[in-house]
Amino acid sequence: MAAVPVQPEITNTTALPVHFGLVVFPFYRVLDIFGPFDVFNSLATVYDIPMKLSVLSTTMDTVSSSPVGGPVIVNGSYNDFGESIKPTMTFAEYLAKNETKHVAIGGETSDIDVLVLPGGSGTRAIMEQEVAFVKAVFPKVKYVLSVCTGATIAARAGILDGRRATTNKKAWKWATSTGNSTEWIGRARWVDDGNIWSSSGVSAGTDMAYAWVSSVYGDAVSDYLSKVAEYTRWSDPNEDPFADIWGVPT
Amino acid sequence: MAAVPVQPEITNTTALPVHFGLVVFPFYRVLDIFGPFDVFNSLATVYDIPMKLSVLSTTMDTVSSSPVGGPVIVNGSYNDFGESIKPTMTFAEYLAKNETKHVAIGGETSDIDVLVLPGGSGTRAIMEQEVAFVKAVFPKVKYVLSVCTGATIAARAGILDGRRATTNKKAWKWATSTGNSTEWIGRARWVDDGNIWSSSGVSAGTDMAYAWVSSVYGDAVSDYLSKVAEYTRWSDPNEDPFADIWGVPT
Repeated sequence: MAAVPVQPEITNTTALPVHFGLVVFPFYRVLDIFGPFDVFNSLATVYDIPMKLSVLSTTMDTVSSSPVGGPVIVNGSYNDFGESIKPTMTFAEYLAKNETKHVAIGGETSDIDVLVLPGGSGTRAIMEQEVAFVKAVFPKVKYVLSVCTGATIAARAGILDGRRATTNKKAWKWATSTGNSTEWIGRARWVDDGNIWSSSGVSAGTDMAYAWVSSVYGDAVSDYLSKVAEYTRWSDPNEDPFADIWGVPT
Repeated sequence: MAAVPVQPEITNTTALPVHFGLVVFPFYRVLDIFGPFDVFNSLATVYDIPMKLSVLSTTMDTVSSSPVGGPVIVNGSYNDFGESIKPTMTFAEYLAKNETKHVAIGGETSDIDVLVLPGGSGTRAIMEQEVAFVKAVFPKVKYVLSVCTGATIAARAGILDGRRATTNKKAWKWATSTGNSTEWIGRARWVDDGNIWSSSGVSAGTDMAYAWVSSVYGDAVSDYLSKVAEYTRWSDPNEDPFADIWGVPT
């Protein structure tokens, strides 16, 4: 029997990102958030490295993934089946650098290094505050990671102008219409455009997260975490059967 | 170009489950919950069928996935990087059939049809209330779905005695020790044992959820939802590379 996997060292010797920020809004898609954050949580627990988290929203109220309370009712549904996540800080508090409130889980005030933008039907709203927040913080963040239609928040903030990105394949036509100066990549599980990474719909965010961890913390780290999670990473960003399935121009 | 997928009808004509229950506790693993619930949420939204949800915990406080606040500190870590979910009801309220509180998201009082037991390092605790809750409600539920070390809650409640089940592969030795009368299946992505389904670690819960939807709502429904989520389902319950990777006896 082969030896079981052993936790590898983080070999990256450059400064690692510390402060993660997550934007949440009503009618978010849960896997867009928790696919990637399962990876980041595991990184924090397994490696015990300094990592902070701010969960940001318009108010401090819990935010539901369900249509009710969200801006869009699909199929005429008022179904409120969904799970609620607790913000740690409002957009306004973060932007005001309120010293009392502007403290992440993990302690201490600092700027966000890694900003995660999930998608979901809730992105069909105007998202004025979310878009303004992304625009305001982008100059200081090290990475933006968008999942699914979360790319539309980035596009509306203007940060995808002249950049390469991808988004949800079923919602391709609408989603790409939010960024007319973006080079949208039709066949891509995810797109690495330097400080902006974007993934295809829903479950693609998980593969992007493992690829991003591979890039930033080392491939052995990503591989080990994926085995702990009993997950088979998709490691080819160009492998994307869903482009054809949903008739996306490629 | 092939036509894009069209939402199929639910062809199952028997009574569908309505009321889902989710047990949450500190230091849960997020993908154990949100892999399956991404599927169930999508089912509720896309099909607009009557579905209710109760998120159950010891108290009404938000529950974090992080080690801090959880019963076990791994690697000496006091890292509190994690996300908090909001319960809708306590175990005691549900068991007391409190008419005011015993109302699920989705409205109205009813018994839970589908009870989901996630895993995570938090299951290393005694879990007295969680185990007692599972024991109390099992006679009336239609399905129990355990993910990862969530199977240990079921085992400690005695409901896996004489039953077939699987669990997390890295934590196999400890996890299986909680159920000495259980037939633990070493090589299995998930195990369907009638009214009790159990999956392997973390990401395996997602594949079990699609398989369960296939079984209960129809395979075309499961296939469609997986394509919307841009997810390639593992459809063979016996396909499990992680048994060998983690040295599980098979």
